[in-house]
Formats: sequence, C-alpha cells, structure tokens
Amino acid sequence: MEPVYDLRSDNVGGAAPEILEAIVAANAGTASPYGDDDYTRRMNARFASAFEHDVQVFPLSSGTGSNSIGLAALANPYGAIYCHETAHINTYECGAPEFFMGAKLVGLPGAGFKLAPAALEEALALAGRGNPTRVQPFALNITQPTDFGTLYTVAEIAALCEVAHRHGLRVHMDGARFANAVAALRCSPAELTWRCGVDVLSLGATKNGAINAEAVVVFDRALAQEIPYRMKRGGQVLSKARFVSAQLERYLADDRWLQRARQANTNAAQLASRLTEIPGVTLVAPVEINMLFLRMPDAAVAALDRGPFRYYKLGRDVRFVCRHDQEPDGMDALVRCVREAALS
Amino acid sequence: MEPVYDLRSDNVGGAAPEILEAIVAANAGTASPYGDDDYTRRMNARFASAFEHDVQVFPLSSGTGSNSIGLAALANPYGAIYCHETAHINTYECGAPEFFMGAKLVGLPGAGFKLAPAALEEALALAGRGNPTRVQPFALNITQPTDFGTLYTVAEIAALCEVAHRHGLRVHMDGARFANAVAALRCSPAELTWRCGVDVLSLGATKNGAINAEAVVVFDRALAQEIPYRMKRGGQVLSKARFVSAQLERYLADDRWLQRARQANTNAAQLASRLTEIPGVTLVAPVEINMLFLRMPDAAVAALDRGPFRYYKLGRDVRFVCRHDQEPDGMDALVRCVREAALS
Amino acid sequence: MEPVYDLRSDNVGGAAPEILEAIVAANAGTASPYGDDDYTRRMNARFASAFEHDVQVFPLSSGTGSNSIGLAALANPYGAIYCHETAHINTYECGAPEFFMGAKLVGLPGAGFKLAPAALEEALALAGRGNPTRVQPFALNITQPTDFGTLYTVAEIAALCEVAHRHGLRVHMDGARFANAVAALRCSPAELTWRCGVDVLSLGATKNGAINAEAVVVFDRALAQEIPYRMKRGGQVLSKARFVSAQLERYLADDRWLQRARQANTNAAQLASRLTEIPGVTLVAPVEINMLFLRMPDAAVAALDRGPFRYYKLGRDVRFVCRHDQEPDGMDALVRCVREAALS
Amino acid sequence: MEPVYDLRSDNVGGAAPEILEAIVAANAGTASPYGDDDYTRRMNARFASAFEHDVQVFPLSSGTGSNSIGLAALANPYGAIYCHETAHINTYECGAPEFFMGAKLVGLPGAGFKLAPAALEEALALAGRGNPTRVQPFALNITQPTDFGTLYTVAEIAALCEVAHRHGLRVHMDGARFANAVAALRCSPAELTWRCGVDVLSLGATKNGAINAEAVVVFDRALAQEIPYRMKRGGQVLSKARFVSAQLERYLADDRWLQRARQANTNAAQLASRLTEIPGVTLVAPVEINMLFLRMPDAAVAALDRGPFRYYKLGRDVRFVCRHDQEPDGMDALVRCVREAALS
Repeated sequence: MEPVYDLRSDNVGGAAPEILEAIVAANAGTASPYGDDDYTRRMNARFASAFEHDVQVFPLSSGTGSNSIGLAALANPYGAIYCHETAHINTYECGAPEFFMGAKLVGLPGAGFKLAPAALEEALALAGRGNPTRVQPFALNITQPTDFGTLYTVAEIAALCEVAHRHGLRVHMDGARFANAVAALRCSPAELTWRCGVDVLSLGATKNGAINAEAVVVFDRALAQEIPYRMKRGGQVLSKARFVSAQLERYLADDRWLQRARQANTNAAQLASRLTEIPGVTLVAPVEINMLFLRMPDAAVAALDRGPFRYYKLGRDVRFVCRHDQEPDGMDALVRCVREAALS
Repeated sequence: MEPVYDLRSDNVGGAAPEILEAIVAANAGTASPYGDDDYTRRMNARFASAFEHDVQVFPLSSGTGSNSIGLAALANPYGAIYCHETAHINTYECGAPEFFMGAKLVGLPGAGFKLAPAALEEALALAGRGNPTRVQPFALNITQPTDFGTLYTVAEIAALCEVAHRHGLRVHMDGARFANAVAALRCSPAELTWRCGVDVLSLGATKNGAINAEAVVVFDRALAQEIPYRMKRGGQVLSKARFVSAQLERYLADDRWLQRARQANTNAAQLASRLTEIPGVTLVAPVEINMLFLRMPDAAVAALDRGPFRYYKLGRDVRFVCRHDQEPDGMDALVRCVREAALS
Repeated sequence: MEPVYDLRSDNVGGAAPEILEAIVAANAGTASPYGDDDYTRRMNARFASAFEHDVQVFPLSSGTGSNSIGLAALANPYGAIYCHETAHINTYECGAPEFFMGAKLVGLPGAGFKLAPAALEEALALAGRGNPTRVQPFALNITQPTDFGTLYTVAEIAALCEVAHRHGLRVHMDGARFANAVAALRCSPAELTWRCGVDVLSLGATKNGAINAEAVVVFDRALAQEIPYRMKRGGQVLSKARFVSAQLERYLADDRWLQRARQANTNAAQLASRLTEIPGVTLVAPVEINMLFLRMPDAAVAALDRGPFRYYKLGRDVRFVCRHDQEPDGMDALVRCVREAALS
Repeated sequence: MEPVYDLRSDNVGGAAPEILEAIVAANAGTASPYGDDDYTRRMNARFASAFEHDVQVFPLSSGTGSNSIGLAALANPYGAIYCHETAHINTYECGAPEFFMGAKLVGLPGAGFKLAPAALEEALALAGRGNPTRVQPFALNITQPTDFGTLYTVAEIAALCEVAHRHGLRVHMDGARFANAVAALRCSPAELTWRCGVDVLSLGATKNGAINAEAVVVFDRALAQEIPYRMKRGGQVLSKARFVSAQLERYLADDRWLQRARQANTNAAQLASRLTEIPGVTLVAPVEINMLFLRMPDAAVAALDRGPFRYYKLGRDVRFVCRHDQEPDGMDALVRCVREAALS
C-alpha cells in the first residue's frame, strides 16, 4: 500500500511510547473508579509541581468536554463569555459550551485571530451591566494557541486578564495545543497561566502524544467545587479514570511532551520556509506553532489533491498541521508536488 | 502491602489482555479522527455481525454519556421517558439524561426492581396525551440487568416493548452490564434487543474488561441521524476514537467477553450460596448476575469494615459486585469474616 | 342560550370589578417599561405591608412561569428539588420547572397529598450529599393548598421548613391558591410564609379575581438578585408591567381578596355537604378550600355529562372547583342532577 | 407636576380605548382557560382574514417569549439560526432565544442593520453542512423593522427567504413593530409575510396600543404542532388567555392599528426633519418608521438631560421613539431645546 501523508491535524497520530507504557502499567490491580484513585492523585500532584501552584485537576477524554466544563465552572446561565470570533469554542464545538453553560458566547474580531485588550475593554463598556435585557459578562476565553496557529505572548495574556479581572470576569484558557505554545514561547506552564491571570486551563494532551487524555486545571480552589457534579451531569466522568490520569501524569513527568511539541513546531517552520520560497505561495497567518495556513496557485492545490496527501481546505486556503513524527519523506514530497505544479 | 479485596463494583478491575493488545495494535500509523476511521468501521461491522442486524454504532468513553445520547436520540424536550424508579438513569447519573434530553424521567415502581407491562400500560393511560400541561410519553428505558442485579427475561422485555410501541414510544436499553445479562440468560445479543423490540442499546464494555469503552447501538437507521451532532454538542466525540473502537471490535470478536461475564456471574452465585448459609444473612434481591444485595447482622457488617474488604452499603444493606477475576482468597476471607462475626 | 355551569377551575371566571378598575386607572399617562415603574414600586410596598416583611416582588403573567422563576432562584443545575409526588410543579407544568432550573424534581409520597417531615428527613438522609453521581438537594417545594385541595397547617409548614433548612435547603411555596389557604386557615400571610420558614412564594391572583397576574415574592433579598435576568431569559418580563402590578397592588389593598376566597371555600363546603348526603357519593379528599374530589355512582357521572355542567375527571373521580361567584342555580342543579341519578 | 416627555420607547404608552373596551367586554361570564376559548378562536379567525391565509395563532404576553417560541418551533438543539448581528433576539433578550431553542444564534454584519442575501448565501456556503463539529443551519431570523428603525422592502424579504428556503432553512420574522412596517411600506400583512416566504411571525401589539398582547402566527400548520407544549414548558401559556386574545382580535378588527402606526411614523419623520435642520445634528440611520437615531452636539445632549425628556443613549448617539399619541408640546420643546443648545 502506498503511503499516505496526513497533515490534517495532529490528532491523526498515535500515542507516544511512554504514554502507552503508562496505560499498560496502570492495568495492575484494582483501583477506585471515577477519579478517586491513586493514579489521579499522583497526576494532580504532578500538575501542581509542573505548574508550581496548588491545582485541582480533572481528567477527561474529550477536548470539547474539557472546554465546556472549564467554562461552565465560570459562567452563569444568563452570562456572556467573551472570545475571539474564530475561537474554537465558538466555531468547531457544535454549541457544546453554550449547552454546558446555558450562557452565550460573544465573539469579538481581532487581528492575528487574537483578542486585543482595547477591544475587550470597549465591548465590556457597552455590555450593559445590570441591564436584565443583556447577557451579563462573566468570563473571558483565550484560545492559546489560536485555531490559526498564532500565539499570544505572555504580556498579551496578562493584559487581557487584567481587563477581564478589573471587570469581574474570570479567565478560561483553551489549551488544546498548550504544549506547542509553551515550546514556542520558551516559558514555563506557570508563566503562561496563573501568573498572568488565567483561572482555569483546559489542557489537551491528545494532540501531542496521548490517547483521549485531557485535563481541566483549576487554579482557584473555589472554582473547583461544582466541577464533579457538572462533569457527571455532562457525561464527562470516566469509570476507569486511572487510565487517563496515568497518561496525564506520565505526560508531564519529564521533558518529552515539550520535545515533541518543539519538533512539531520545527517541522511546520521548515515546511513553511520551503513552501513560501515557491512563487505564488504565501502565508495567510504567521507560523508560530505546528500549523500552516497558506494560499497557493490553483494548480498546486489540484496537484496536492491528486497526490498521497491529506489536508484541510478553508475556503481558498489550505491548512497543514505537523506532528512531531511527521514523515520527512512526506514533507519532501509535498514541497516537490507544490513546486512542480506552481512552476509548470 | 496487605491485599485489599475490592467488591465495590466491576469497574475497579483492569482491562483484559486482548483488549490491551488491541489498544497497542491500534497505535500503528495515522487514522482519521472523530470516528471516521477504519477501526470504527470494522467495529461497526463486528457489531452488525454479533447482533445479526444492520446497526449504527457510536463509540464513546462514558456510560452516562452513552445512556444520555441513546435517550436523547429518542426524546423531545417536552417528553416523558418512563423507567423503573430505581433505574440507574434516574438515580445515579446526576441528572445527565434530563440534561441531554431536556425531558423528564417518570419513575414507576415495580417488583424485583423491574417494570411490569401492566404498570406501564396504566401509567400511559393516565399520561394525558395531547394535553399541553403534561409531559408527553416518548420513550421507555429498560435497565438490563437492573441496578439491583435482577434480569428481565426475553419475554418480559418483549411484553414491555409491545406496550411501548403500541403507544408510540421508542425503547432504550441501558446495558451497562449487557454481557452479564446475555451470559445469564443464555440468549443471543439479537434475542435480547431488536428481536424483542429494543430500538437503541447503550452497551457497556468497561465493566467487563475494557477501558472506558462504551457503545450506542442503534437498530433503526433513522434514529441515528442526529446522534453525531448531539454527541459533539455533549462533548462525547473522541478525538482518537480509534482507540475505543479497536477495543469494542476486539471485545465482540470472540467468546471471551461472555466467558468473563459467566465467570463473574458464577463468582457471585457461589458467594451468595456460601453467605446465605450463615445464620442471619439473607438476600435482598435474587442473585441473577454478578451482584449480591444482602442483609446481615450488624456484627458482620462491623467485621467487614475492619477487614481488608471494600464494598458499598445501601442503607442497612450491603452490596457486593464480583469481577471475573475476583480473588478466590478474597471471597474465602469474606465468607470467613461474616461467618465468624455472625456466629460469635 | 342555555346557561352552562362551569366547575372545571377557578380560572374560568373573570376579574373582580375593582381589579378591572385598577387596569383602567393604570392606563393614564406613560410609565417605564419592564417593571421599573411607580405602579410596581407601590405594589412592592403593598406586599411588604401585607406580609409584614421586606420583600422583593416580581410581577408576571403565568403561574407556571412564577413557579419556575421562584424555583430557579433557589436551585443549581445539578440540584434536586423535593416535592410531593402530586405537586403541581411535578405533574401539570409540562416540565417547565426542570427547564428553568436545569435541575431534577424528586417526588415523594405522602398522605393527604402532603409531604411529611419524616419522609423528607429520610429522603435527605439517603440523598448522597457530596456524591457526584447523585443530584444534590437544594430546595423544597410546598404546594399550599395542594392540587387536591388539602392544606398544610402552619405548624406542618414550619416542621417541613425546619427539616429543609437544617439540611441546607431553601423553601419555595407554590401558592396558586394562596388566598384560599389564608382564608381557610384564618392566619396572616406572614404566618403562612416567612414566619414559618418559606423563602420564596409564588403567589397567584389569577384564580381569585385577577387577570393573568402572578407574583414571585422573595423574603430574602440575596435570593432576588438573579431573578431579573432569569425572568428576561425565560420570557417572563412584561413590557407594560404596570398593568399587572396595578392589579396586584389593588388585590392586596383591602379585604376583598379574602372575602372572595372565603366565599369560594364556603361554596365548596356547602356543595360537599349536600353531595355527600346522597347515597354512593363519597369524598376522595377532605374539602378544605374550594375544591372537591368525589367518587360517585356511574349513573351520576353519566347524568352530569348530559347536563349543562363542566368539570374534570381524574380516572374514576370527579373534581369540582368553586369560584366565589359560582352560580347558586348551578350548584342547586348539580346537586339535583346527582341525587336523581344516584337514587333512580 | 411638570410634564415629562417620554421618547424612550413606544411601550411607555398605554392602551388604545377600543383595546381596553375589549378587555372589559371579555370579562363577561366564564371561559375555558389556556386558550381553548371562543375569544381565542375568534382571534384566530380574525388573523386568518387579516393575513389572507390559514394560520395558527398563539396568544402570549411577552415579546421575548413570542420570539423564543416562534424560533423554537423552527430549530433543533444543535442548530444555527442566522440573524443580523444587531437583531433584537441577539442583543436585547438576555439569551432567551438560545434558552428556548438550545441552539446558537449566528449574527452576520450588514449595511442598514439589515441582512443581505449575498452575505447569507456566503455564510451558508461556509457553514459546514453535515460536519458534526459545526452547528447546523436551521432558520433565518428577519427583524422587521430592525432595532434601528430601518425596513426591509418586500423584495428584500423575498430574496432572503429564497436563499433560506433553497438551503433548507425556515424563516422567522420578529415583528415587534409589525404595524409600523406595514404602515410604512403600504403593503398588506400577507405581502410582508407568507407571500414572500415567512414561515412564522412574532407579531407584537403591545408597542402599538395593546396591553402585553403578542402573537405567534404560524403559516405552516405542521410547524404549529409542538408549540402548545413548548409554550407550557416555557411558562408562556396564559391561564385567562381570553383577555389577550380579545385584545388581539380587536386589534386587527379595523384600521385603527394602522392609523396609530402611521401617526407614530409621521411623528418621527417630522421630528427628524426638524432636528436635522439644526447644525450639528445628523441621522445615524434613515428614519423609516417611528424611531430616530441621531448624533448631536454634546451641548445638545447635555441640555436634553436637564430638560423634562426621557430617551435612550447608545454610546455617543441618542434614540427617540415616537408614539402615535406623542405630545406635540413635547416634540416642540425637544426641538427647541436641541436648537438652543446647538446654536449657543
């Protein structure tokens, strides 16, 4: 069978070896169900260490579930949750956050697919606090990295959180590709989250070497109290939670999660560099993590569609997402395919 | 470390060897996310074969999610879903079914923790069809086995489904311990489901050797159409669904799922037999699968609490659930502990 | 046209003269919309005076809306609200309370269609506080009078509230026929509500001489804060609220609301007395307000169905509800009709 | 007491004389509750005549409730409802439509506060039909007139409905000021609704001389079937519905509703004409009905705030809404106040 080079998303890849080993190791003996087990407790301790903070961590299997639970811990049913209009929670979760919260997402525009503090400030000034005909501001969502592969700097996050907190909003970070952000910004998990004001983080490990392993990480103990009930009511509690907790514990146990993320980022940077040398190929968004958004000649797109490549189109643009273990042959073939079509 | 004998639930156990192997094997190469992959297609074919019927199967990680999605496929927001008052969906899912459906559960009493056709018939006669002040009957839930370890016979299920269908209700079966039912009743999966009128089955594999692997099995193609959207909105879609589908495919691939269920049932029967020989120990419910509900002298309960045993209490009663790999030493020790306390 | 005697419900009647006058009077000039008007402020003051307590009162048009808003102010989305299994909110509101609350009603049995403190105590003891698989107790609903026309004494309400408060539950009273209860018990509005522990009252005026005028009366200021938002989100805020507030203000302005209620109660008592003298006619529930539930010979029911009477049947029983302006001719005719049929 | 001139909204006014008379007349005798009465049947017939079409009409008291019920009849819980980003349902109903539908509003930009067919077409092309990660298009909302007082022509509505229906969407019209639109466009109710493709109309009478009287008007009988249940569940069913139905029947019984709307529109046109003659006063939106949005010198705004005027500000702009019975003295005084401040 001819190889297929898949650049659709980082979730088409498998599990890292040590993650699989952790699953196998967790199979020994019995354990309490529903997260009341030693694997989960060790995982929580691991997160506390990695984030240098007291944290309450809830393991689950779905990224959409993780965002929805993290947001629901912050929001009231008549609340408004502010996000960028292209935020994943606003576009690709089929209304799950609204379903779990009973609240309304308010999408704001912003350059680079990012919210700007001034735009948030202005939106909040016009939000109609105390007017019962208006949904009331409760929380801010920051998608880091964004769905278009751009990054907020630590300073940008701090500035957004400052505005949010000054207006009484709590802050949720959608970190489906948290590893790629930490790797690219060369900062610590703490610097990217609670130190600049994030209250709840939905951290994804699935796209970076785990198997359906996500975590709601709560930096304020008071916010964690309702989460077990909201998770159960939302079908997010895992019967054998130990098998997710064991993955998450192993995930943060050493530097490999960041090594993988760095490699994926590097693959994307190199692919971008090689593709943009080709006439007619331009970046739609800066390449800051492992995602590329490109515009290219129609002939090149047609050629890609004939080749052994899988990728997504967004209107006229193409999207490539690189995994840490992206096949070098595949990337070479892709560059060759685009170059030949563009030059012919 | 002294051994602990855990009889709280069958979900305290681990994964069967071949299930773990299936996970490891599924780690080769890339695969489409969200269930659009070959593992999921093979799993669907396996279920079609095992159930001798065209089926649409949706893999997920949570039993509560599986029940909620299966029910939501059947119910309208102003609907009434009939179930036994002790049904798991009515008692131990923190309102998840109502949350996903937007409908109301109507719990009916019934001997043996089971619904009786006549009671359902009577409830439906008084339900106020067409009266907008009343929630409107939409579906019937049959929990098989019940939460108290009792079983509906195939004829009993058929009789309930006949009443339900005659009144325009669809039928959902909560099969969290479906294997134990099939093993105990010595019938085929088909006989226990669509052949007697079940429209949607929530089949659990987690309690019988899988890792967070559940399936919504739809026997009527029309009912399956909305499920992908409802799953996404409910945070039930798995990014790397192949790892759940691979388990489910392997689960039904040979007879081992039933062997394990039979062994678990046998363990419970033997434990019941030995314990009820002890003066003062009586069954609260018949032992038909791998669960025992017993009343025993206070001294025996106190002795159990001092020993290396884990189990649940329900008011004055105690509950033991046996796994297929329940430690024989543990069962011996438990019988000894109760006998000595009861006789002293 | 031959007269029709309607005993279906007290909401088949019209408005009292002074209530209509209040509507007409409120039509002078302009007023702020949405309840921010002087009519509403005067109404609030009137309620404070009538209830001898600081109260926050919210005018609305629907009794179901009033119950749902009053309950939603007390409940969390994973909450359990305890009520009698025959409570109106549990049987005749098509799931509205659950819709507004996102919570679950737990219906308990109880003699006389009333909750007993011991039954509530026992249910709460088994409720699984802190167990995320269980909906968590948040509130108690007392339907006073009950849907079967029975009454809680002040002492009974106090005892229920004591149990509820001791377990951390807030108390909601469904007072759709509050006037009939106050009239029958010869107590003050205060004695029947906050003095014995009621936190929120849904007071209905519609069944006793008003036009779609209901009030959510909150006795604890903290509970009132979310109500304006929940009302707006639930479509319960009235654009020209002054026309409801003016009714409610007038309603409590003098003794006529109680005079009407007393007369309705008296009508029912006399009707009961006359009917139960007839052989074969027996009361199903004691007649404590303006409602009668009777069992009577089939011939009598058949005769009623041929006559100019309107009433409801509940299974084998018949229900009559008396208005304050129930036509004496109609009651005479009804007694005559039943007597002749029963004796023939 | 000095007069106050209130230009905040048309709902600060009272009821038209014939509407009040209709309420008083409806007080005779008894009537079935919940809309099963002759007043409601006559009202339905009146609407059928006025709209020249078989219609199902549901009376209610809240405009927000009317929009929410009308939309919920069209939408699925994972649905997307397209509207202009400034649509009332998207901005001033505190999330009620989402609450009733369980679906998501998708706000689109558009000149003149109106949706353009091309923009809708483009949005639908990118909506991801059949992709479970995306909310699925179900309905279109047209707010006619818009919240900024602009109007869609009949041709514009027809063009939007054509796009919507071609993509399988149903169309809801928010007609809170339907009378003003009909009056301004000099078309018939039929021409503005079903003849150009509207499936459900939420018609408001409250802002044009009625008392909390709104109607959900359904032009396709199949869409009406669920509405009674959804209304009851949403607390929108009125116990004494006859008093709303009687208003609605009288409202459409002759030409007075349009006379009032025409007068209100004329008042606004004249006020706009006089104000825009003043230097520094400009229109923010064209004046097509009874609403004016103006930008004016700060000194003029300050002067208005000192005078006996009530009006709303939206950021830097001011909004005036004229009633049919707007006081001429008040409009003169307002013009004088602005002119003097602007010229000083």
